[in-house]
Amino acid sequence: MSASTSLPQVFRAIDVIRKKRDGVELSRSEIEGLVNAYTRGEIPDYQVSAWLMAVVLRGMTRPETAALTDAMLRSGEVLDLSSLPAKKVDKHSTGGVGDKTSLVLAPLAAAAGIAVPMISGRGLGHTGGTLDKLEAIPGFNVNLPVGEFRRVLKICGCAMIGQTAEIAPADRKLYALRDVTGTVESPYLICASIMSKKLAEGIDALVLDVKTGSGAFMKSEKDAVFLAELMVETGERMGKQVVALITDMDQPLGNMIGNALEVVECVDILRGAGPEDLRELCLELAGWMLYLGGATKSVAEGKQESVKLISSGAALERFRQMVELQGGSVAAIDDPRKLPQAKSALQVGASKSGVIASMQCEQIGTACVILGGGREKKEDSVDPAVGIVLHKKVGDRVAAGEPLATIYYNSETRAAQARQLIETSCVVAESAPPKRPLIHRVIGRSGEKN
Amino acid sequence: MSASTSLPQVFRAIDVIRKKRDGVELSRSEIEGLVNAYTRGEIPDYQVSAWLMAVVLRGMTRPETAALTDAMLRSGEVLDLSSLPAKKVDKHSTGGVGDKTSLVLAPLAAAAGIAVPMISGRGLGHTGGTLDKLEAIPGFNVNLPVGEFRRVLKICGCAMIGQTAEIAPADRKLYALRDVTGTVESPYLICASIMSKKLAEGIDALVLDVKTGSGAFMKSEKDAVFLAELMVETGERMGKQVVALITDMDQPLGNMIGNALEVVECVDILRGAGPEDLRELCLELAGWMLYLGGATKSVAEGKQESVKLISSGAALERFRQMVELQGGSVAAIDDPRKLPQAKSALQVGASKSGVIASMQCEQIGTACVILGGGREKKEDSVDPAVGIVLHKKVGDRVAAGEPLATIYYNSETRAAQARQLIETSCVVAESAPPKRPLIHRVIGRSGEKN
Repeated sequence: MSASTSLPQVFRAIDVIRKKRDGVELSRSEIEGLVNAYTRGEIPDYQVSAWLMAVVLRGMTRPETAALTDAMLRSGEVLDLSSLPAKKVDKHSTGGVGDKTSLVLAPLAAAAGIAVPMISGRGLGHTGGTLDKLEAIPGFNVNLPVGEFRRVLKICGCAMIGQTAEIAPADRKLYALRDVTGTVESPYLICASIMSKKLAEGIDALVLDVKTGSGAFMKSEKDAVFLAELMVETGERMGKQVVALITDMDQPLGNMIGNALEVVECVDILRGAGPEDLRELCLELAGWMLYLGGATKSVAEGKQESVKLISSGAALERFRQMVELQGGSVAAIDDPRKLPQAKSALQVGASKSGVIASMQCEQIGTACVILGGGREKKEDSVDPAVGIVLHKKVGDRVAAGEPLATIYYNSETRAAQARQLIETSCVVAESAPPKRPLIHRVIGRSGEKN
Repeated sequence: MSASTSLPQVFRAIDVIRKKRDGVELSRSEIEGLVNAYTRGEIPDYQVSAWLMAVVLRGMTRPETAALTDAMLRSGEVLDLSSLPAKKVDKHSTGGVGDKTSLVLAPLAAAAGIAVPMISGRGLGHTGGTLDKLEAIPGFNVNLPVGEFRRVLKICGCAMIGQTAEIAPADRKLYALRDVTGTVESPYLICASIMSKKLAEGIDALVLDVKTGSGAFMKSEKDAVFLAELMVETGERMGKQVVALITDMDQPLGNMIGNALEVVECVDILRGAGPEDLRELCLELAGWMLYLGGATKSVAEGKQESVKLISSGAALERFRQMVELQGGSVAAIDDPRKLPQAKSALQVGASKSGVIASMQCEQIGTACVILGGGREKKEDSVDPAVGIVLHKKVGDRVAAGEPLATIYYNSETRAAQARQLIETSCVVAESAPPKRPLIHRVIGRSGEKN
């Protein structure tokens, strides 16, 4: 992209480390040099980890962040989907508990004529992952080769797979290093990691769902807004339409947490049922996807259109089609009893009467991980059947002993630990604080007219 | 040392990295855990380099700095010189141009009955190194085994060698990593590196010569004072008497720069001749060594005693004895023509008449490196014969064309480059600014009564 990269300059990693350490802005060619040399294995991990720590502590300017994103994006294959006439739009969430909107949004936007080439991740820490949820559907294959991914996308307008070796290899290598060197927690590095992978999908527009609250990675709204602005500006610098919704993750989204359970709740939404908060967020995000994808003239129209596509059954039909094309059991979509089922269930009752004043949301996510629904270590396998169904949410009245939640489990020991976490996470008081809005803010120039 | 180290705790490098990244003070056992695990090869370079960068940017508290120094010191052998009845005192300089006091001070303090077990380094960047100077003496062996080092020390009261594999191996490993990860420039890491090696010598007291000015690593007096205070406090926390002199390095020390030339100038000082500034600094540092070593009741007395030991020839005799015991040519000490000689010499003349207002001292050091007197890369060998003799110093009057310096060289190309550096380093003006003092400040409680 920049002319300077073709100059036969000697790249010295030490100079780039020193500059960043001293708070001097790096040029595009310095950042490209570092990313490319590292991806090719020409500079050692110990130099890159020192540089990463300097980035964590010194930060990056917007041009640096965009240059890093661009270099990571171009470290591998960028999908060319120009042969598909539809506009390509994707959605990305920073992760939460019970955050399952992707399974609803991809078929819903596809039903509106938009192409959704979605490359997703697995559960991380206390949060769930789209790939783990999809794999709860018997037979569903998230590891399609790129050619097959294109074919599914062409036929049904959406396809959902995991990161391939070809997409942004620099991110894969950098993320593995960040994970073991205390350099994950930097908005600049998080932005470059997310945006490089998403923009490698060959999309025209992107809707970001940046979570904030006790179950989010960005607990404070200030941090969430900072990351959102960074991602929006980075995407815009690279010629994409990007909008970010700051949405609430101070309690789980919807009522179900756990991989198979979340598939059930998504199918409920696609059938026009399901919990109100999940439905509202899906419609809001879908509204933006339809608007940015040119299917409607406004976000409001996009929401109305989405309601229709759910009512008509068109969205569910797309989901069934995608599941079938990716090798999954459509029977399990039509009958949730055919999804993996946990052996046992137990109820968690309220300790006293009152109103649910708050839920420590990360703790509920951790409870699901402990049940086996997420990973404590990367190598762990996930149990698709286990999970939690909440019967009460923040603001709901509860009587002493009334069920707060049901735990679906395959191990008594794990269930006991999860129960304790759920019990201590729910605070019952005389009254609840004012309800937090589901959508806190919308960030991005693309949203100015709405 | 601390009870917590014996607990069977699992050491997780990532936790220590994260704490330092977030500006949280590390405990002694965390720092020990990191240093010990790294020295044993149990944690990878990439984790340690991320931690080092966090230290560079977050800094360290005094207890952390002392704990790091202590852990590095105890990573290897600590010399036990308790069988020697004399007090053990050493001197360390942070490095400069023409900074050759060690060759005078070791025999001078030894002549006063103090034991000087000096472990030194090589030239670094634009500065010279004691080992390179000693090796200009034909046959001089700086790589004595520890047993032989003790023997020389016992016989003549001083011995001068290079770092051994047994002394502070953690420093050796950490320094190599710092050198390639942009993490050299941290007063905390510099302090721990210097003090761990010096305290491993089994000394009772240490005189630090912390340089400031255009030829020093710490250009500003503020930075020099900060490092000096850090080293003094760290040494005192470890039960040693430590004093630091902040001394001037805004122009070269003495008139000669280059390894064999510097030996010549040291012998001149030991004969009671030599340039005034070098003589003054040697007497000041020797005064402190004698005082801290208990040979005299005050620094002033120590200086007087040093003058006597030079006049009597006792100091020179110790130097001759040490050279002989370490395999060096005493004939070359007695007759400088037997030291390595450069093939050619050229004069650098003043471009105009006036007063030398300033000398860019680092540039003069670099000129000597370019001649071959220092190393551009670690692997380079050093030419002992080449160097620079200054005929004028700051404040001296000079007529147009009058010689400023003589360059001794073995390569025309290198000489031309060095000449240009020397010419541009000397500023001739109508008047010179007020003379900078040679000793800026003395830091350390040990010096309170003086």
